[in-house]
Amino acid sequence: MGNYRIAVLPGDGIGKEVTSGAVEVLKAVGIRFGHEFTFEYGLIGGAAIDEAGTPLPEETLRLCRESDAVLLGAVGGPKWDDNPPHLRPEKGLLAIRKQLDLYANLRPVVCYDSLVSASPLKPDLVQGVDFVIVRELTGGIYFGQPSGRVVENGEEKAVDTLLYKKEEIERIVRMAFILARGRKKKVTSVDKANVLSSSRLWREVAEEVAKQFPDVTLEHMLVDNAAMQLIRAPKQFDVIVTENMFGDILSDEASMLSGSLGMLPSASLSASGPSLYEPVHGSAPDIAGMNKANPIAAILSAAMMLRLSFGLTAEAEAVEHAVWQALALGLRTADLAPSGGRIVSTNEMVEEIKAAV
Amino acid sequence: MGNYRIAVLPGDGIGKEVTSGAVEVLKAVGIRFGHEFTFEYGLIGGAAIDEAGTPLPEETLRLCRESDAVLLGAVGGPKWDDNPPHLRPEKGLLAIRKQLDLYANLRPVVCYDSLVSASPLKPDLVQGVDFVIVRELTGGIYFGQPSGRVVENGEEKAVDTLLYKKEEIERIVRMAFILARGRKKKVTSVDKANVLSSSRLWREVAEEVAKQFPDVTLEHMLVDNAAMQLIRAPKQFDVIVTENMFGDILSDEASMLSGSLGMLPSASLSASGPSLYEPVHGSAPDIAGMNKANPIAAILSAAMMLRLSFGLTAEAEAVEHAVWQALALGLRTADLAPSGGRIVSTNEMVEEIKAAV
Ligand SMILES: CC(C)[C@H](C(=O)O)[C@@H](O)C(=O)O
Ligand SMILES: CC(C)[C@H](C(=O)O)[C@@H](O)C(=O)O
Repeated sequence: MGNYRIAVLPGDGIGKEVTSGAVEVLKAVGIRFGHEFTFEYGLIGGAAIDEAGTPLPEETLRLCRESDAVLLGAVGGPKWDDNPPHLRPEKGLLAIRKQLDLYANLRPVVCYDSLVSASPLKPDLVQGVDFVIVRELTGGIYFGQPSGRVVENGEEKAVDTLLYKKEEIERIVRMAFILARGRKKKVTSVDKANVLSSSRLWREVAEEVAKQFPDVTLEHMLVDNAAMQLIRAPKQFDVIVTENMFGDILSDEASMLSGSLGMLPSASLSASGPSLYEPVHGSAPDIAGMNKANPIAAILSAAMMLRLSFGLTAEAEAVEHAVWQALALGLRTADLAPSGGRIVSTNEMVEEIKAAV
Repeated sequence: MGNYRIAVLPGDGIGKEVTSGAVEVLKAVGIRFGHEFTFEYGLIGGAAIDEAGTPLPEETLRLCRESDAVLLGAVGGPKWDDNPPHLRPEKGLLAIRKQLDLYANLRPVVCYDSLVSASPLKPDLVQGVDFVIVRELTGGIYFGQPSGRVVENGEEKAVDTLLYKKEEIERIVRMAFILARGRKKKVTSVDKANVLSSSRLWREVAEEVAKQFPDVTLEHMLVDNAAMQLIRAPKQFDVIVTENMFGDILSDEASMLSGSLGMLPSASLSASGPSLYEPVHGSAPDIAGMNKANPIAAILSAAMMLRLSFGLTAEAEAVEHAVWQALALGLRTADLAPSGGRIVSTNEMVEEIKAAV
């Protein structure tokens, strides 16, 4: 019987529909297990630019800091694409990650048996896929300075900086090892050590951290090879740990193993304060407001919140099982159509999962 | 009837076997079409470190500059993995790219009908795949300065720099448009413009260049989405143009569409001097010297040389057709085993292709 304050930041596009679905499911969990969840809403992304003139208002940050966890939808859309960099929706997302020190982005990739045929990959390759990508989220080329435009001797140039401190690498690699301990005890550290200085430091630090986890195997893999291995033989992976940009690319690629980007939840863990939970997918402006979006990534993100922020394991499992059941019954949002079953709306999918909780 | 000087740099591991196969095939082309090819050998990579103390000896560079084209195998291996950065085989590859100004790396991705089932993707998704990745090869984070290790206030850090000049972007994007004109007239420019300054400049320049090619369509795609689309719906692509690191990652991923990395050739075109041709795959130390490697990527690289450096179109087509025929006859090196057929050695594959030329 607990009381939990949850900050909900729907953001833009389908972010609104999928967070509302996740909130519904959390309410059902509250009733079934006797918890009190309080939901308070904040602005972020394009919605915040429109209403408050900035992609991450101070008020939103305050709300998050006073909450036990944050549930986020998605940000962005064509409406704001021509805005100057500091007034772009994505800046809100990058800023909240940095401000709340959400350094560890966990992206589990699981292929549900009933969705095996939704994947572009051959069934025998994806059946049983179950790994997690641990992406560093507050460092690297996303935040390094200098970053910008310069004119030198009449030449126009643009520069970005990939910077990692030893401690930043240490804490994310350690997180990967801790997770691996509770899983299949294998960490694949992905880098580009044959080219990048930052990757060579990354590899060294990974080796050091590994010494504290003699029960876990560490392997190194170059990012180009990893992009290939993910589709060649995805079952070789247990925990993948990598820097910010590589993690961004590899996790979107890996989403295809689970059938759809609409299936992938994520947790962004903070070093100190509240953690944030969001689907890996974006705001999908083309289908926003059409009651077609897949709410499962957001709902599974809420399940991660129950487990990782509140320690409510049985509750998290109830949600995960409800999702599994809805899929096994043949319910499919449009993105999952290739796997057969009955096409349903966002609302129908949410109702089914709620009922099953 | 022409005379052509070809510099051959076998490098390490299977680099030796596959370049020797490609040389055999070129000799057969010479006989059949009455050309004289002269082959001169140079050191690069680990082999050069061992024999000359540096991964790219001056002599090799001189040889390349005096040649009409360069055929390269692959570099690298565990033997040199613990060498200091400037004595690593890969440095030889990066240095030759920079020294010969090989700015445009063309990586065609084609799925041969007879190899459809070798791909981890479903047959209907890969059958008919035919696009080319145009990767910028002499700029970006591979060469930007500063790059290295620093200790500041007792904190250990490592930094890399992603830098692009406007002209560097212009020339590679223009190359993509020129190629698209002779193909399906579509360019997909891949960047991360929602995060990187260099990508925003990239996108601007791409828009500018596009104005000179009103008959070609330009679309922009974020790199994370591109990593997903490549396996979700690869037939949407015609010409993909992108910066150095993104091109590295995406082309290895895309190799899986053609069944095996052992199928992918590449051309690295120079702004002024001789161009270089090399398979996309690496030195594969685990199978080096075992007569098991797939020579097709190297042989198709030689075909690209015939077409792009020497303007010998009929000759290039003869080689490509010979490869097609060997595959259609059911010959398969070990990497292509999943597609059925008869497993043959490197030599047997080379002999068959030579005979068919
Ligand atoms: C929207 C964008 C800035 C973001 C990122 O690149 O991190 C997104 O792609 C993600 O993966 O969460
Ligand atoms: C060996 C390595 C430096 C190289 C690169 O990253 O460019 C390779 O992966 C390639 O794609 O040619």
